[in-house]
Amino acid sequence: MAMTAWRRWRRKVHEILELGSDAHPAAYVVNGFIVVLIVLNAIAFAAETVGDLAVRYGPWFRASTVFSVLVFTVEYALRVWSAVEIPVLSRMPPARARAIFATRPIMIIDLLAFAPWYVQWLIPVDLRVLRLLRVVRLFKLARFSPALQTLLRVFQDEYRALLGALLVMLILLLFASTGVYFLERDAQPDAFGSIPAASWWALSTLTTVGYGDVVPVTPWGKVLGGVVMVLGVGMFALPVAIIATGFSQESMRHQFVATWSMVARVPVFANMSRVEIADITKLLETRSVDPGVPIVRAGDAGDGMYILASGEALLALGDDRTLTLREGDLFGQMALLERRRHEHDVIATTHCRVYMLDGRALGRLSRRYPDLRERLSLAAASQNAVGETAT
Amino acid sequence: MAMTAWRRWRRKVHEILELGSDAHPAAYVVNGFIVVLIVLNAIAFAAETVGDLAVRYGPWFRASTVFSVLVFTVEYALRVWSAVEIPVLSRMPPARARAIFATRPIMIIDLLAFAPWYVQWLIPVDLRVLRLLRVVRLFKLARFSPALQTLLRVFQDEYRALLGALLVMLILLLFASTGVYFLERDAQPDAFGSIPAASWWALSTLTTVGYGDVVPVTPWGKVLGGVVMVLGVGMFALPVAIIATGFSQESMRHQFVATWSMVARVPVFANMSRVEIADITKLLETRSVDPGVPIVRAGDAGDGMYILASGEALLALGDDRTLTLREGDLFGQMALLERRRHEHDVIATTHCRVYMLDGRALGRLSRRYPDLRERLSLAAASQNAVGETAT
Amino acid sequence: MAMTAWRRWRRKVHEILELGSDAHPAAYVVNGFIVVLIVLNAIAFAAETVGDLAVRYGPWFRASTVFSVLVFTVEYALRVWSAVEIPVLSRMPPARARAIFATRPIMIIDLLAFAPWYVQWLIPVDLRVLRLLRVVRLFKLARFSPALQTLLRVFQDEYRALLGALLVMLILLLFASTGVYFLERDAQPDAFGSIPAASWWALSTLTTVGYGDVVPVTPWGKVLGGVVMVLGVGMFALPVAIIATGFSQESMRHQFVATWSMVARVPVFANMSRVEIADITKLLETRSVDPGVPIVRAGDAGDGMYILASGEALLALGDDRTLTLREGDLFGQMALLERRRHEHDVIATTHCRVYMLDGRALGRLSRRYPDLRERLSLAAASQNAVGETAT
Amino acid sequence: MAMTAWRRWRRKVHEILELGSDAHPAAYVVNGFIVVLIVLNAIAFAAETVGDLAVRYGPWFRASTVFSVLVFTVEYALRVWSAVEIPVLSRMPPARARAIFATRPIMIIDLLAFAPWYVQWLIPVDLRVLRLLRVVRLFKLARFSPALQTLLRVFQDEYRALLGALLVMLILLLFASTGVYFLERDAQPDAFGSIPAASWWALSTLTTVGYGDVVPVTPWGKVLGGVVMVLGVGMFALPVAIIATGFSQESMRHQFVATWSMVARVPVFANMSRVEIADITKLLETRSVDPGVPIVRAGDAGDGMYILASGEALLALGDDRTLTLREGDLFGQMALLERRRHEHDVIATTHCRVYMLDGRALGRLSRRYPDLRERLSLAAASQNAVGETAT
Repeated sequence: MAMTAWRRWRRKVHEILELGSDAHPAAYVVNGFIVVLIVLNAIAFAAETVGDLAVRYGPWFRASTVFSVLVFTVEYALRVWSAVEIPVLSRMPPARARAIFATRPIMIIDLLAFAPWYVQWLIPVDLRVLRLLRVVRLFKLARFSPALQTLLRVFQDEYRALLGALLVMLILLLFASTGVYFLERDAQPDAFGSIPAASWWALSTLTTVGYGDVVPVTPWGKVLGGVVMVLGVGMFALPVAIIATGFSQESMRHQFVATWSMVARVPVFANMSRVEIADITKLLETRSVDPGVPIVRAGDAGDGMYILASGEALLALGDDRTLTLREGDLFGQMALLERRRHEHDVIATTHCRVYMLDGRALGRLSRRYPDLRERLSLAAASQNAVGETAT
Repeated sequence: MAMTAWRRWRRKVHEILELGSDAHPAAYVVNGFIVVLIVLNAIAFAAETVGDLAVRYGPWFRASTVFSVLVFTVEYALRVWSAVEIPVLSRMPPARARAIFATRPIMIIDLLAFAPWYVQWLIPVDLRVLRLLRVVRLFKLARFSPALQTLLRVFQDEYRALLGALLVMLILLLFASTGVYFLERDAQPDAFGSIPAASWWALSTLTTVGYGDVVPVTPWGKVLGGVVMVLGVGMFALPVAIIATGFSQESMRHQFVATWSMVARVPVFANMSRVEIADITKLLETRSVDPGVPIVRAGDAGDGMYILASGEALLALGDDRTLTLREGDLFGQMALLERRRHEHDVIATTHCRVYMLDGRALGRLSRRYPDLRERLSLAAASQNAVGETAT
Repeated sequence: MAMTAWRRWRRKVHEILELGSDAHPAAYVVNGFIVVLIVLNAIAFAAETVGDLAVRYGPWFRASTVFSVLVFTVEYALRVWSAVEIPVLSRMPPARARAIFATRPIMIIDLLAFAPWYVQWLIPVDLRVLRLLRVVRLFKLARFSPALQTLLRVFQDEYRALLGALLVMLILLLFASTGVYFLERDAQPDAFGSIPAASWWALSTLTTVGYGDVVPVTPWGKVLGGVVMVLGVGMFALPVAIIATGFSQESMRHQFVATWSMVARVPVFANMSRVEIADITKLLETRSVDPGVPIVRAGDAGDGMYILASGEALLALGDDRTLTLREGDLFGQMALLERRRHEHDVIATTHCRVYMLDGRALGRLSRRYPDLRERLSLAAASQNAVGETAT
Repeated sequence: MAMTAWRRWRRKVHEILELGSDAHPAAYVVNGFIVVLIVLNAIAFAAETVGDLAVRYGPWFRASTVFSVLVFTVEYALRVWSAVEIPVLSRMPPARARAIFATRPIMIIDLLAFAPWYVQWLIPVDLRVLRLLRVVRLFKLARFSPALQTLLRVFQDEYRALLGALLVMLILLLFASTGVYFLERDAQPDAFGSIPAASWWALSTLTTVGYGDVVPVTPWGKVLGGVVMVLGVGMFALPVAIIATGFSQESMRHQFVATWSMVARVPVFANMSRVEIADITKLLETRSVDPGVPIVRAGDAGDGMYILASGEALLALGDDRTLTLREGDLFGQMALLERRRHEHDVIATTHCRVYMLDGRALGRLSRRYPDLRERLSLAAASQNAVGETAT
């Protein structure tokens, strides 16, 4: 059926463009290509303004502009088209799903990255404004840097405090400008002849930029200058303090979310709700294990249940048979459940991070979720009939 | 009775001016108007000093000055008049209440924002000082930015450490000035001819402003310059470290206070003291729930009592009837109290933040406050006879 | 007996100079006088280098120098003489005690503040070096700013990491200097003719001072300049991060020490060791109470024992009699020990900070220190026979 | 046997070069010599470019270069030769062990520090490139500064976030350059004639370097300049926040590792795995004890087991006999195990740090490791038959 092939393609496009390299290996190539194109655009945009280069490579610049506009257009169209594959939107009528999708901030940036180019053919528009809009293309990079998104979220969370810091700066700026205006206007009427003029010096001092094109020359002007410099150092502290506090909170939240997603992927916890998985996440302890070091040792008391967070480990079965454990694998739960000793060694083969749930925490959890113990036993039995159950 | 109408008006003025938009919707308009006026004043103040603008728009500037002075006067009078509505002051004789109110720092700033203008008619005063005092109006903004108040509180808490940092800077400044004075005074007698003169360079280097109008030229002068630069970078670290530490503590305290006020508004806790509510606040856990996700699921063990901190949730009653829960609503307590399973789903409809009090914490609380359990049951029964009690 | 009067004087001098205003009110005056003298010295030192002032006020400057040297000499002599009153040193032979005391870093600074002035009469010495040593007097201020001492301790704790940051800066500096030397030496042989010469520009850029007296002019020189600027911003982050981390740890430690000293002053805990008091300190919770708010309410269950950390509270006895509680007072312990309800209200009259020890924590403590319960009961009975025991 | 002497030498070389002064006292001298040589090299490298010095001391510079290349060569050869003594590598065939060892990043730096010098004799190579490579020698210092390694680890952990911050800076840079290009290109065609040219000003303003060689002169250019300055202050906050967060995490991890290694060295815990020692480490509490203060007092209840982390303490036996306890010594365990009172005082003689494991924590541990109690008793009996067992 043609329809199904169509859908399969849409699915694939969605995986490549929206889900990224985890979902489809081609995403590496496509994302890389778009990132390179954005960067080249920025370089071309800047280079075009250099007289010599503009004369020599003019046609190339124009061709590259057309090319990237086309690519961005296709990319945008494909994203909108495949948007109906997004789980949250998949139940709506396609037109509405796409309309909702197109109003996402990142999609509006994508639209602004190429749309102005088309507008110039329809209505006469100031080319300078058009050129400025090309800078917007750089914002498309936000999609490809999760760290940048974290930073933006910090700005968003702390914008009230940052505005407060800006207000402090404005108040200081007005004071500094007024003061220096009164002290220096007679000595240097050009540079300090009015408060707006004086604020150029005041701001460049408060921000510790200090061009030095305008500098107070009277003794009292210099004393005020010294005070403004010291206030400037204090001013610096405010945004740093605000963003550092926000960032360290965001960073903790991020770690929690990372652990959470790891736990959510463990089959045993598959049919639990988000809130329940968050409960479990809170109870986990993290351990770091070097290669060659045993995580669980045969004969030790079953003190905890383990999830391999990263790295690889080896479960040593009796007669030289081994089982390789990978990211997301669960082990050690049977010894804990049956209150007996571990029967097999589990040895880290690479550097591993392991989440551990100790007996007391498991007790609390199974009181809340009475079928958890049963599910853990079943998992141990079915998942790896080979021998993992025996640890 | 005329007296009562008078009082009703006073109440309304108090709500608008002091309590803000939570208490009376008109506060939005009034606050917005005052903020705009303050900002316009600052702009007019700066613009007036520009020769051209002063000539052209002189009358406008003077008119705007008179207008804002009048507005600030009326605002001040109304604030003082309605101050007797403030709970703490309401039991005193009105004159004393108003006198106490007028000595609050923020009220003194309000007074300084317009009073000097009147003074000039009474006694001849230097106009320059008068003009400088107009900058004080900008401080009135502090009233409208809670973030700014937080920042000021941080400065207040950490002022000892900041003074220590200032002392470090002064010591370094004296050393740098003395050093460069000995090294450069022969080469550049104008710029480094005395220690006070040399300190202009030293301070602009220590604060990393670096105007470059004066720069050491001898080899040893440059070596000292390099050392001072590096010390400057270190100096920067002190205020940042101090304020960042203070801000992150203030931020935690702020979160506690926010939760506390939320808890204080829950009817069940209404007649508890501040300290008791703080006790409860400490025991709460915060959870973040995405829309569509169940917070409580029918059939789960009653493991906790929930307060909706933000967002909206839906309590699904049996036969398609639902109940909408809003900020401050309590749910899930009956299952916890009667040690049974939840009977109904509660599903987040928007992004929700939920405070949760688990069984162990409730146990500790009810040992301290023996009538709490009873109050919780009563609340559940009376508050929402529709069915919330059943969760 | 003359000997005893002598000793009484020595004790008084010790209290004023070493223990400060807590021990003797005259310390305020003496400390204030010394601080003012130090500051005036610094100002005189700088002013003396200004030609005009030196000519006009020369004799005054010389007189003030002699005067402060005399004061500092007397102060030093008195400190050394009264050092035998320090508990740790009081058991040694006086000569040895004073010798040990004189080697404390702060005493060496005190010595350096005046000794060089005497040396010039004995041996001919370069007056310039002598003058530089006068700057040392400013360090005497360290004695009077506890915040400064905290900052110095942070530097001390983190000096390894700060040296590491300095090393990073030196490596970047050498790279930047070498790079700009190769790129710019042909264009600007004066400023970039050798690596040491180029390092002047490199350092002023890396520290973001940016004088602008020397600036790269070739295109590649400017590209390198841009990279160095960005590295400079990164470089700034290192000392800030190190000192911020150190300061926030020091600040927590400081809070612990403050609470500890409060606990150590409560009579009940008087004969406990430092380690034991630290144990108790760890178990305390802090509460902030506004004036007029009850801390303990008659009829509430006895859930904790309280120590008033700051502020004043009122214990309301039956028939309009009240008892004022002050800093360090203990209350509420009897209800906790006898597992009954509080019999009297305790209401904060000013803003109070209260340390609370709850039942569970007291349980743990009395298991460790079996006689604690008895001591608490005795304290309650004897300390305030008036009625505090009844709370 | 010659073979054995050979091996003994290899072992000694390994101890001196790789294990450092803990393993062999000669390491102090050797490390110090290499550090001094590296620093002298950097100085010589810079001095050589100064015309005067090059002429006067040319032969010395050349000789020092040859000398240090020889030393670095010998050092490298010895490190590679003795690498087979590293436990992880000792089981492999020597050739493979050395090959693996030679690919460590620090060994590649060591190789680059001298290898280029030899290359010039084999193939003709641009001497300038060769000279630049000499700067690499400075990186050899990384080996000798653990703090530097911590800082590098922080950079490594946070490089994603730092790249995000760099991206933010690049976006702001492009905006600022484009804006100032449009606003100032007519007024100053030289400095702002193209976007790349304008970016020199934009970057020097964003990083708050502010040379002042190029400055906007038009009113709107100055307004944009002001905005860019303020953004620059905000930009500064990002790397600081990122590195401060990373550093404080790294610092906590470091403390944990330090305690862990202390615990691992206590004989009783000798045959426990890394993970088990980490378990114990988590349960320890740290205490700081001043000299002269008792850590354990005879007659007190046996509330905990102690490990001396740093400093020295005295165990007071009955009849004036004492026992000196040193770093890593264990005491107080018998009173805890036999639930009786301590029989002897242990008094700190220097400032001590003590790790304490209280009864509850020991209970948890001995449930996990059933033979722990027995091992502790045995240790007490055998280790110090003199009397420590009796505490």
